[in-house]
Amino acid sequence: MNQPLRVGVAGLGTVGASTVRLFETRSNGISANTGRPVRVTAVSARTRGKDRGFDETAYTWFDDAGEMAASEGIDVYVELIGGEDGPALESVAAALRAGKHVVTANKALLAKHGLALAKLAEENQVQLCFEAAVAGGIPVIKTLRESLAGNDVDHVYGILNGTCNYILTRMQEDRISFAECLADAQRLGYAEADPTFDVEGFDTAHKLAILTSLAFGTEIDADSIYVEGISSITLADIDAAEELGYKIKLLGIAQRTESGIEQRVHPTMIPKTAAIARTDGVLNGVAIDGDFIGQVVLVGPGAGGDATASAIAGDVADIARGTRVAPFGRPSGELVPYNRARMRRHEGGYYIRFSVFDRPGAFAKIAVCMAEKKISLESIVQRKSKAKSTAGGTAAGAEGAGDPQPVIIITYETTESAVKEALKAVEDAGVIATKPQIIRIEAPHEQK
Amino acid sequence: MNQPLRVGVAGLGTVGASTVRLFETRSNGISANTGRPVRVTAVSARTRGKDRGFDETAYTWFDDAGEMAASEGIDVYVELIGGEDGPALESVAAALRAGKHVVTANKALLAKHGLALAKLAEENQVQLCFEAAVAGGIPVIKTLRESLAGNDVDHVYGILNGTCNYILTRMQEDRISFAECLADAQRLGYAEADPTFDVEGFDTAHKLAILTSLAFGTEIDADSIYVEGISSITLADIDAAEELGYKIKLLGIAQRTESGIEQRVHPTMIPKTAAIARTDGVLNGVAIDGDFIGQVVLVGPGAGGDATASAIAGDVADIARGTRVAPFGRPSGELVPYNRARMRRHEGGYYIRFSVFDRPGAFAKIAVCMAEKKISLESIVQRKSKAKSTAGGTAAGAEGAGDPQPVIIITYETTESAVKEALKAVEDAGVIATKPQIIRIEAPHEQK
Repeated sequence: MNQPLRVGVAGLGTVGASTVRLFETRSNGISANTGRPVRVTAVSARTRGKDRGFDETAYTWFDDAGEMAASEGIDVYVELIGGEDGPALESVAAALRAGKHVVTANKALLAKHGLALAKLAEENQVQLCFEAAVAGGIPVIKTLRESLAGNDVDHVYGILNGTCNYILTRMQEDRISFAECLADAQRLGYAEADPTFDVEGFDTAHKLAILTSLAFGTEIDADSIYVEGISSITLADIDAAEELGYKIKLLGIAQRTESGIEQRVHPTMIPKTAAIARTDGVLNGVAIDGDFIGQVVLVGPGAGGDATASAIAGDVADIARGTRVAPFGRPSGELVPYNRARMRRHEGGYYIRFSVFDRPGAFAKIAVCMAEKKISLESIVQRKSKAKSTAGGTAAGAEGAGDPQPVIIITYETTESAVKEALKAVEDAGVIATKPQIIRIEAPHEQK
Repeated sequence: MNQPLRVGVAGLGTVGASTVRLFETRSNGISANTGRPVRVTAVSARTRGKDRGFDETAYTWFDDAGEMAASEGIDVYVELIGGEDGPALESVAAALRAGKHVVTANKALLAKHGLALAKLAEENQVQLCFEAAVAGGIPVIKTLRESLAGNDVDHVYGILNGTCNYILTRMQEDRISFAECLADAQRLGYAEADPTFDVEGFDTAHKLAILTSLAFGTEIDADSIYVEGISSITLADIDAAEELGYKIKLLGIAQRTESGIEQRVHPTMIPKTAAIARTDGVLNGVAIDGDFIGQVVLVGPGAGGDATASAIAGDVADIARGTRVAPFGRPSGELVPYNRARMRRHEGGYYIRFSVFDRPGAFAKIAVCMAEKKISLESIVQRKSKAKSTAGGTAAGAEGAGDPQPVIIITYETTESAVKEALKAVEDAGVIATKPQIIRIEAPHEQK
């Protein structure tokens, strides 16, 4: 049997502590699987002496992660510090330069510096692994990078943020508002005190940037991602989606189109029957469409200490086994520049909810604006908003002429620019009370 | 760049032809991904000169697969001949002995000879890969063997046969009988002329045997699998499942219990809300429960030339990249003997459908038999069978005393032996007209 593989873990929050415990519990199994003993030998965190569920004194302690990263005593550096720059970046770079393999769960770091770090790993002939950075325990990185090597992938999309999925699921199941759900999620520890990063879609965007690079062999470009969060979603939208046969999910979507590659994060209406539509609560789910495989869907826990530790252990096992694979599926020098498809050229169906003044000809005006941009309508729904009546509001008194009424349309496939221009014309016509709500519709390839 | 990896493909049916075409189309991508050119150089089949969608003359032709397997001109032997013995076994063994890596989609071969072949591969220091043998394009082998290396897996189950899943889905959706569905499946090419192997569960059992070994580190033991097929499932069962909140799926299940490892294949009632319950049509789906990951579910095409070719290409890419991993996740010498849990000790809920003579005290007798075996009842449903009335049967005339009536019970968790003994007592009591229908209930861990 080979020399033991010595692992140093930096950052001992929930994931770090689970990772240390995993290697304590499962070292025999991992050793049988990889043919090499694997053990954590060193740890690093800001505060020493906290109860983290393991005996700290069994490991060499480093106050400075960067020092541990480059130390003689480790072969693999596991970075769980977080943050796109600072100590995370410095220690990862230090580890790679010192010829240590790196395993990280840090999507923000990879979204910003992934290409440079991949180059550094290649120069130093070490592995840079990050299964835990996207969709927690779900093996989506390995599937894209290795299992689907024989496919031309043209579409990857998924639910990549458990906080948003929890909120949208609760809104639908319990018929409570976004704000109430968010407060609940914060209370249960599913959402941060400052939830912006999750609910406005930035976390999803970081993860999507990584998947895009792997799926299409392109350089990571997180800055080009179109990002919309879920804070504007109302119960009226949730109800309408239900009625029309859809569910609303925050998706990260990367898609090859004639005008380049689309990368977008936004609330999406997907048919209830799609596997991703039925991925609820804090679960994550990713669908991958390839020319040979058709579609494969992976569903599982997208966060949590133990599930994330499982992904980290999988990466460490690959390293122990001696597996060598380019971080983004091909050598960094062969990744092609990301060719951005402009959002205005996006093609798809749209859900649009108007608040229309209740006066003769108002809806006719909307219909004309749509027709002028050659947008065909698949459905039109006009009804009292359930949200209003549930709130014990002014349902009875609201029927006087002039009070705005919700009108929802579903368009056939059109373009983002046509929709935006038509809505501009509608707003200029003065027939709607508030800015229309737009939710893009994703009609996944049907699984056969 | 390294020397090209030369692949020989034996068996040029649907999967073999797709595989050759995949490598023709995707060789640049695979080469970028693996750092090594990969190409098919030789092919073998029984009949030369058929139109298989590629130019046969571009490859060295072998009439004899075994000869190709051992020839100087290939580095990887892809076996797509099929069959648990004969030319498949001989050629695979010849390839391994000649120091060639082997990729196979042959679950029957592996279920019978997997351990011996793994040993042979290890002795010759070559890889034996079989992602395509279980659940077609879905990367379940790699997930169990590599991604979940840090987990203690205690439960793997899934829909592993597309033919059965298609039939059960059609029965439910179109309300037609098993026999009608089977005939349709045969007409559409989803079922063989002799469907026994699929519908009686043997194909699922072969695949399950492979998953069990990977999940638990045990020697393959396909002969110990409890196997029941779907041919006894009636519309009455499908309707009752629907009404009670379940779906009926043919599952392969491997589960660690206190008395050993259960391996069973049988029609199963699973809650409608479980991800596997919603895997319909010819799709396959596998759920894996591990102590760290929780549950991960993989869904995708379980058969078909292109999807299977995708899995084969993934294996060949691993070989090209130089990945080395024990076929069953640990060296064959470290696989432990399979410790069979007896079916009679199986614990779970049961669905039992009786055909009860319509006379006073008949059901009371059943209830007593159950109670005597300490079986508690969760639900009791007595109603006219929809199947009967749909068939334009004798619903109106059937109400005379003495005509048997369907009565369905759902038990709380009990044991197989208690159920079998209680049913023996019920039969002996002469209150039922036909043998009761039993379907085991699987209540998967809820995903959080």
